[in-house]
Amino acid sequence: MSEIHSLSNRDAVAFERFADQSDKGLQSFRNGMAGLGSAVNVITTRVEDFPVGFTATAVSSVTDTPPTLLVCLNRSASVFEVFNKADFLCVNTLCAYQDVVSGLFSGKKSQTERFQEVDWKEFITGAPVLQTSAIAFDCAISTRVSVGTHDIFICEVLGIVRAESMSNLVYFNRKYHHLT
Amino acid sequence: MSEIHSLSNRDAVAFERFADQSDKGLQSFRNGMAGLGSAVNVITTRVEDFPVGFTATAVSSVTDTPPTLLVCLNRSASVFEVFNKADFLCVNTLCAYQDVVSGLFSGKKSQTERFQEVDWKEFITGAPVLQTSAIAFDCAISTRVSVGTHDIFICEVLGIVRAESMSNLVYFNRKYHHLT
Repeated sequence: MSEIHSLSNRDAVAFERFADQSDKGLQSFRNGMAGLGSAVNVITTRVEDFPVGFTATAVSSVTDTPPTLLVCLNRSASVFEVFNKADFLCVNTLCAYQDVVSGLFSGKKSQTERFQEVDWKEFITGAPVLQTSAIAFDCAISTRVSVGTHDIFICEVLGIVRAESMSNLVYFNRKYHHLT
Repeated sequence: MSEIHSLSNRDAVAFERFADQSDKGLQSFRNGMAGLGSAVNVITTRVEDFPVGFTATAVSSVTDTPPTLLVCLNRSASVFEVFNKADFLCVNTLCAYQDVVSGLFSGKKSQTERFQEVDWKEFITGAPVLQTSAIAFDCAISTRVSVGTHDIFICEVLGIVRAESMSNLVYFNRKYHHLT
């Protein structure tokens, strides 16, 4: 083990070693992740005729051969059972200034109410694509990997729809930012 | 299969179905991923006494119990063999206006030259932490999952260092953006 350093003398906050903390780093980790900016997405699927969706920032490209992305979902989330049984999902990356849609899909409203308040259509897989998307990725769920409290959904992308004008809603430092 | 729709009549680009494309969607997927904004990170480790690092946007939070993130790396990358043998890595999420550091760790310079051009220190695991980081996550590599051309490195976060002033360099729509 090497000596512990801070980023610089002038501009540093103390090094936070999780093993030394009573909560094993839970709060420090959350504070840290607030410093990793991410695009805001609404992840959707459909169970029978009912559309279901939730807001997520834990989305990443994986490989382009074959086109693949991943989404992380807490197994204790209310939507987990639906996504756990689903064969497909759509990643709707939100346009800038869609803060309200982000809040709608992370709030307390029912799934029925959520989809009444946005314009959406079905994608080729049947997953809902929101009209507030900058880009929507239609995916078949390939594999699930359990890590701690979450499952990583690894998904093959079957097709996309892009908005003409590209913009992004980004969550960083516990605030929305608007990239245009 | 449902009918194919575009995002809206006014503001839509045609739906791009990868199975219909001669390259199986490779270019469409890349264009799509350009629409998913991501923080820019330099991922580092050390082999014997030599620091090694590369620029990556495919980084995501996974779970806070235990604190876990993931990093995707192409198995054909020059640094892959080093990271494949490593037990630890550091995710250095860059501050805004660190475009030069992003380019340095994704360009043609040798690893020796890269680390000569930045200020860095060793973290608790021994991984290099860059002084241009907004936040640095010191990690033990827990698991690797192969998907297509890439490996997903699933990593337990052991500690962090945060800069006093929080900012991010974000890559979106094939340009750098600066969140402050």
